[in-house]
Amino acid sequence: MNTAIDLNCDMGESYGAYTIGGDAGVVAYITSANIACGFHASDPMVMDRTVRLCRDNNVAPGAHPGFPDRVGFGRRFMDLTAEELINDVIYQVGALRGFLARYELPLQHVKLHGALYNYVATREELILRIAGALQKPFDNPVFLTLGTTRTTKLLEKCRREGIRLALEAFPDRRYTDAGELQSRREPGAVLKDPREIARRAVAMATRKGVESVSGRWLEMDIHTLCLHGDNKESMEAAALIYRSLLDEQIQIHPLGVILP
Amino acid sequence: MNTAIDLNCDMGESYGAYTIGGDAGVVAYITSANIACGFHASDPMVMDRTVRLCRDNNVAPGAHPGFPDRVGFGRRFMDLTAEELINDVIYQVGALRGFLARYELPLQHVKLHGALYNYVATREELILRIAGALQKPFDNPVFLTLGTTRTTKLLEKCRREGIRLALEAFPDRRYTDAGELQSRREPGAVLKDPREIARRAVAMATRKGVESVSGRWLEMDIHTLCLHGDNKESMEAAALIYRSLLDEQIQIHPLGVILP
Amino acid sequence: MNTAIDLNCDMGESYGAYTIGGDAGVVAYITSANIACGFHASDPMVMDRTVRLCRDNNVAPGAHPGFPDRVGFGRRFMDLTAEELINDVIYQVGALRGFLARYELPLQHVKLHGALYNYVATREELILRIAGALQKPFDNPVFLTLGTTRTTKLLEKCRREGIRLALEAFPDRRYTDAGELQSRREPGAVLKDPREIARRAVAMATRKGVESVSGRWLEMDIHTLCLHGDNKESMEAAALIYRSLLDEQIQIHPLGVILP
Amino acid sequence: MNTAIDLNCDMGESYGAYTIGGDAGVVAYITSANIACGFHASDPMVMDRTVRLCRDNNVAPGAHPGFPDRVGFGRRFMDLTAEELINDVIYQVGALRGFLARYELPLQHVKLHGALYNYVATREELILRIAGALQKPFDNPVFLTLGTTRTTKLLEKCRREGIRLALEAFPDRRYTDAGELQSRREPGAVLKDPREIARRAVAMATRKGVESVSGRWLEMDIHTLCLHGDNKESMEAAALIYRSLLDEQIQIHPLGVILP
Repeated sequence: MNTAIDLNCDMGESYGAYTIGGDAGVVAYITSANIACGFHASDPMVMDRTVRLCRDNNVAPGAHPGFPDRVGFGRRFMDLTAEELINDVIYQVGALRGFLARYELPLQHVKLHGALYNYVATREELILRIAGALQKPFDNPVFLTLGTTRTTKLLEKCRREGIRLALEAFPDRRYTDAGELQSRREPGAVLKDPREIARRAVAMATRKGVESVSGRWLEMDIHTLCLHGDNKESMEAAALIYRSLLDEQIQIHPLGVILP
Repeated sequence: MNTAIDLNCDMGESYGAYTIGGDAGVVAYITSANIACGFHASDPMVMDRTVRLCRDNNVAPGAHPGFPDRVGFGRRFMDLTAEELINDVIYQVGALRGFLARYELPLQHVKLHGALYNYVATREELILRIAGALQKPFDNPVFLTLGTTRTTKLLEKCRREGIRLALEAFPDRRYTDAGELQSRREPGAVLKDPREIARRAVAMATRKGVESVSGRWLEMDIHTLCLHGDNKESMEAAALIYRSLLDEQIQIHPLGVILP
Repeated sequence: MNTAIDLNCDMGESYGAYTIGGDAGVVAYITSANIACGFHASDPMVMDRTVRLCRDNNVAPGAHPGFPDRVGFGRRFMDLTAEELINDVIYQVGALRGFLARYELPLQHVKLHGALYNYVATREELILRIAGALQKPFDNPVFLTLGTTRTTKLLEKCRREGIRLALEAFPDRRYTDAGELQSRREPGAVLKDPREIARRAVAMATRKGVESVSGRWLEMDIHTLCLHGDNKESMEAAALIYRSLLDEQIQIHPLGVILP
Repeated sequence: MNTAIDLNCDMGESYGAYTIGGDAGVVAYITSANIACGFHASDPMVMDRTVRLCRDNNVAPGAHPGFPDRVGFGRRFMDLTAEELINDVIYQVGALRGFLARYELPLQHVKLHGALYNYVATREELILRIAGALQKPFDNPVFLTLGTTRTTKLLEKCRREGIRLALEAFPDRRYTDAGELQSRREPGAVLKDPREIARRAVAMATRKGVESVSGRWLEMDIHTLCLHGDNKESMEAAALIYRSLLDEQIQIHPLGVILP
């Protein structure tokens, strides 16, 4: 049984004079980094620095493209056509790849950011179109999206088209009985207690599924867990998840190793 | 004697709802295209379209990065550090390369834009640093800069470091006796008559040099001539340059063919 | 019977090196100008120039704020909160007002642009909130929105709150039987024939209503007609509307004169 | 003898998801706030919030316009024409004034930011042009610039043209013997010890001058001292300056009160 899991975290979201996130800390607990590409956050100096941070910590770098909305940090939906989305993503992934190539690092994966992630996560056709459009220009990177109880078929479709899809779960988020993330607007939707978060992470990684808000166990394909490093609590949770997984002798590997 | 010459032109400088330049027309008369990369002009949709235009017309694509100043169209000097310049350039070239890879096209060259071009053109150290920083990430693209009477030594230095430098002349610009471009602010600095421009282009290509404002002939290394397609006059000049060179049996080849 | 009508047109949507629209031509046929404010289009130099154009042609200036999306020209919906919308609008109207004050011109009106216009047009609460938020800071400018068969009640509500609402009709657009603009995606939704457009404009101005796609007459409150100047056809239509209205002895006045 | 002094501080430089500065703390120790206007920092939500913070703390608000370079935080010189500078400033001041008008607050002053401040500070003609261009549109706001040993004549010229010029000194910066700010690149140019900074502030306010790096006393016209709140040290210095001035029975008033 494959209990190997990847741990990913958004990184490099600082911008000019502005610093955000705890990149230098959380980098010790992850295997894959989602690096912002200058549309919702980051800039060329930050990207260069973040790529070096990944290299120095042996973390597999991926692109984290978002909507072209810096003031909204990519968290506000924008009504773009599929072709606009694809071109915005190619632009951003290409830009990151310039910095990766500078340090002779391969691009491991692409994970969309914020409102773009949410919008695409529920649209199978769009996942196939965007992920498909990235195969040739970027040497078939892993495409990371939200795991749900219904993603098994999507995985199958991707396999047929040669798309390397990775599915993600969130240890610090409540799931509905339908297997969807509970809206952040609902109280308690985001968990704070590091021990509870770590306990859920271990369950997700070993049993491949999530526990819903009403206590039901929902089976899911899960390849990676999303960690955070933007505050003290989430950093503590990240460290505890990492240690708990090691304690359970679960293998922690970057996506490129886990996926065929 | 090598009389082969490249003809280059800035392209893809439209932006969103805004159209600029006569790309579809001038593309017939050039061998190398300098494609804007989204900082001083262009956007992902325009870049995708421009790369396809180059592919369909068999024109070798290059990147045309500029200062991060869209409202100023990259024509206003910005006081960036060398490292900021390098990272801004890597970002933009990388972004373009995503679109090139989408259509399986190689990146032939990099030509800086506007105020950035002018600033770097007179600074040998900066040329070496920027061009050097592009070698590894982008498979050693040709770096295009302004030819002067003093660039022979620079060419030599570049050769030693494996940098493929290409030197450019402007058939529609007056040159001082020192071999520099006369400032656009001086009356007559930009020539308008297509026949005079074409005559100068032929002289530049065959005799490798430029005629100064006082009638002196200045020898220069020249690999490429800069054409324009932004108005009726310049488009006419471009067509006439192209035909005049063919009439004189001068070979017109993209930079990648001309340079070793 | 009040047959006075205002003629408005979007203006000042050029940007940096990019020119768009036929401001200098259409300005002769309008009484109110909707001046772009730098978010979806325009920049400080263009705004200053456009304000002077209005002054020199005795056209009443208004603000034309849009979504913060220059590459999309404000035509793509962005999911902003009401407070974000209000602050984005105050920022833009304030910026324009700086230029108006430079030339001692009052701000006559505010008309939202593109996707923001469409989004707000169907939301009464939002109209009241945004228009209400502009009363104090900008000396109670006219707020311009889309006229429909259902705006009479909205007019009443606005009157009670002291909001000066103006309703707009589009002579060059097809209307559904429900009195809404037919989507531009449907063939024929945008009329091209200047004579037909002018005929409709006269009917709108004299009979206060619009003819639907199936030939029904729909009564509406209409204070202003939207003209365009971005191409030869629309410019011809603008000129013809202007002359036809004069021929019919309909008074053409800016909104500030028409509204109490 | 007039020993009244104003204390000013840059404020509202956060941006979207990014927080910078200690506005809520330092606001207790100042009489004038320089509020960022969205070009080098800030956005409409931050501006609205910052204006309310000023109102609630009885601090006189001013505009703090900068170069259009957010990624560089307005700290990088950009080669703009005087007319571009003026229009960029009018745009930004106008935008801020929209928010001030929302809360019925007057605009007290304008202080340029960063590289724009430095560029203009040494150019008398430009000060007169920019400050002059702001008189009519913004009800003659105070224009704040760097005090030097040579600004007495400039003050005189401004008086003649009705420009209300205010001169500023920096308690935490070393001055050369020529009365200029020592470059930040030189070690020790920025003082850190709150007690030393406060001692210098008292001397500046009471004796109207600065002590140079070699210990010379240089007389200067000084109306306001620049405080900082971006880190713990500077916040401590701000508090100590405030208390030291009170202890010395120096009156602390906003510029609008100090200047005629």
